[in-house]
Amino acid sequence: MTYQLYYWDSIPGRGEFVRLALEAAGATYVDMAREDDVGDLGTEAMIDLLEDSGPASPPFAPPFLRDGSLLISHVANILLYLGPRLGLVPVGEGPRHFAHGLQLTITDLLAEVHDTHHPISTALYYEDQLAPAKLRAAAFLAHRLPKFLGYFERVLQTNPNGPHHAVGAELSYVDLSLFQLVAGLHYAFPRAMRHFAQQHPLLASLHQRVPQHALLKAYLRSERRLAFNQDGIFRHYPALDLAGSVPPDVPAAKAS
Amino acid sequence: MTYQLYYWDSIPGRGEFVRLALEAAGATYVDMAREDDVGDLGTEAMIDLLEDSGPASPPFAPPFLRDGSLLISHVANILLYLGPRLGLVPVGEGPRHFAHGLQLTITDLLAEVHDTHHPISTALYYEDQLAPAKLRAAAFLAHRLPKFLGYFERVLQTNPNGPHHAVGAELSYVDLSLFQLVAGLHYAFPRAMRHFAQQHPLLASLHQRVPQHALLKAYLRSERRLAFNQDGIFRHYPALDLAGSVPPDVPAAKAS
Repeated sequence: MTYQLYYWDSIPGRGEFVRLALEAAGATYVDMAREDDVGDLGTEAMIDLLEDSGPASPPFAPPFLRDGSLLISHVANILLYLGPRLGLVPVGEGPRHFAHGLQLTITDLLAEVHDTHHPISTALYYEDQLAPAKLRAAAFLAHRLPKFLGYFERVLQTNPNGPHHAVGAELSYVDLSLFQLVAGLHYAFPRAMRHFAQQHPLLASLHQRVPQHALLKAYLRSERRLAFNQDGIFRHYPALDLAGSVPPDVPAAKAS
Repeated sequence: MTYQLYYWDSIPGRGEFVRLALEAAGATYVDMAREDDVGDLGTEAMIDLLEDSGPASPPFAPPFLRDGSLLISHVANILLYLGPRLGLVPVGEGPRHFAHGLQLTITDLLAEVHDTHHPISTALYYEDQLAPAKLRAAAFLAHRLPKFLGYFERVLQTNPNGPHHAVGAELSYVDLSLFQLVAGLHYAFPRAMRHFAQQHPLLASLHQRVPQHALLKAYLRSERRLAFNQDGIFRHYPALDLAGSVPPDVPAAKAS
């Protein structure tokens, strides 16, 4: 079965979290929007699919995955579906819901990373929301990022199967997503991430280990791997990378 | 089996989306943090559970659900688990992933609603981020809310089983969440939502129909139902409710 992945063609963005799972498992897939515009290939065809007002309800936004007649949207939902099929999640209802919960926490963190450079509106350029972006990024680096990273470090630390994996005893889609997350944070916030490895040794070790996986190593060197750039979730704006270091974990604040 | 729901005790917030499912199905559950502080009951016990550094990895944040030895976090993940058990999602892998994708779209919208009053930081008061909040709320009401509401209206319109339900032919957890979403939007943005029913007749009809469900009707009149207030996701700040109406659907902008 050939999976069809739909995502914007020029950024790693959210699509990359799905790509890493497909690549690590050696799955056969077509990256639909990155192909030339012919038939159901290309970006225009993807947009047509989103705007289709036919009987089948289309997804709200990319990424989405087609597998035969199934159309599945949202990264975490796609990985929930692919995990067991690609052998990238432990067997059992408990571990699967736990892995999915971790993926949804990563999803929340990604939205907060995005909002550091777009705190007001995605309809405005970064330059047109620079002042609030600086404030939001500072708050993110001071309070939110340490809370999230401290949480994921603790997840590795408390894994009954050992600290090499987020869930279970083998590579899962959560490990792949944590790798991409840490890589993106290093790209976007090199200054704030300076002391990351000392403060989060287990996450840092995972970030080093994942790309040594044979299939991933080949993928990461291929043209299929898109570099981080200034159009995605992770963007490097020096003005937003002002914290000297990620401070230690802070107590959880009550939030709705 | 008695479910144990963990969520902050004074706001409907994200917990309410789980409560509505439990109540609509007549499930037996304990709303753990809303009980008096005795043993594993009360807010302090919930916070202890979140900060527990024992072997079992705790959730990142409320809400979470305990069912026997399973601990499941994130609203959409909890509803994914409860849906089949409570008869609140159609049978089959396709409909379940579709329902879950819809719930994750609702999750995204809720985060955007929250950020209208807290665009900079949850560590600051609303009053201390009023200027960016006005900008973010205006952009949200002009661009994002119409896109989301237009999408959900289209989901109802294109349901092969008819426009009374988001997925399948019967009440699902997605319908319950859409009800709560529309109710919250009316509370937070009465002015911007003035023309909602004319512009989104199917969503408006669903919002009228859901509370007529016998068990929900009883629940909504009970003390268990928490009213919207100024500490939750949906808050009514007149300064943020400036749009005269929700404009018609706008084209999807490319976003990461």
